[in-house]
Amino acid sequence: MKIGRTLIAGLIVAGIATTAAVGDSHVDKATLAAIKARKAQMTLYNFNAGLLFGMAKGDIEYNAEAASAAAANLAAQAAMNQSRLWPAGSDTEALGIEVTRAKAAAWQSDSKAGEYGKALGMATVTMASAAGEGLEALRGAIGPIGKACTACHEDYRVPFN
Amino acid sequence: MKIGRTLIAGLIVAGIATTAAVGDSHVDKATLAAIKARKAQMTLYNFNAGLLFGMAKGDIEYNAEAASAAAANLAAQAAMNQSRLWPAGSDTEALGIEVTRAKAAAWQSDSKAGEYGKALGMATVTMASAAGEGLEALRGAIGPIGKACTACHEDYRVPFN
Repeated sequence: MKIGRTLIAGLIVAGIATTAAVGDSHVDKATLAAIKARKAQMTLYNFNAGLLFGMAKGDIEYNAEAASAAAANLAAQAAMNQSRLWPAGSDTEALGIEVTRAKAAAWQSDSKAGEYGKALGMATVTMASAAGEGLEALRGAIGPIGKACTACHEDYRVPFN
Repeated sequence: MKIGRTLIAGLIVAGIATTAAVGDSHVDKATLAAIKARKAQMTLYNFNAGLLFGMAKGDIEYNAEAASAAAANLAAQAAMNQSRLWPAGSDTEALGIEVTRAKAAAWQSDSKAGEYGKALGMATVTMASAAGEGLEALRGAIGPIGKACTACHEDYRVPFN
């Protein structure tokens, strides 16, 4: 991972420099609103998935009703039309890492982001059926959710360090 | 509104004092996560409803596909189970206005927050059918959405000033 870390460190420096030069006031308001909204989308993914992962790991006591509600929310969130959350040019290379950590590669023609999104959608539908059927059923459905999240973050999100 | 402003000013001072005394580090992590998630929920409400209000006012050009997508998202968001977003004790009187602007009154037995939430849900279902059917249909469905948002904010959210 040494090369990766060096590249990312360079990207962070470049990102900060871009932010300093561009400044939020010069970024289109609509773009900033979309970035804020997609961060909100991620916060809600994390809030609902976090409960399910916590139960799967045994950190949170299993509760069928709470698990079902979180899974239904997660599936509803994943099924939403998210096209307005990802306008062209709303990437870290254009706006700086202080504004967004979404790599421009996510918008390229060979991007797998859409594929990962579909995988997440399917995984959440499975989870929505499984979550209320007991801890083992929940555990059996959790893997593909984590896999889809991780795949997209590893490929298209600049890490914090 | 003079009495209201004075009361609110007092509440703001009390809120800041509470925050200073309590400090975020003493607030339960789960409570802070719930507050962050409900702010995310509001951000997404605003992102989707904002497009519809913008079209209704004529600030944004009407587009049936975009309006439909935003309205469907809004309805899905309103239909979610939101009980985990509002844990007891996550109010501005307990945690300070820097943490949350949700008044404790929202949790009281005579609270109309649930009623306003249901009104919003119904209004978004109507909008989900109307939004793609032309600008006049969208305009005809926008009133009850604004009314539900405003009712809850006026009763249960501390204003910024």
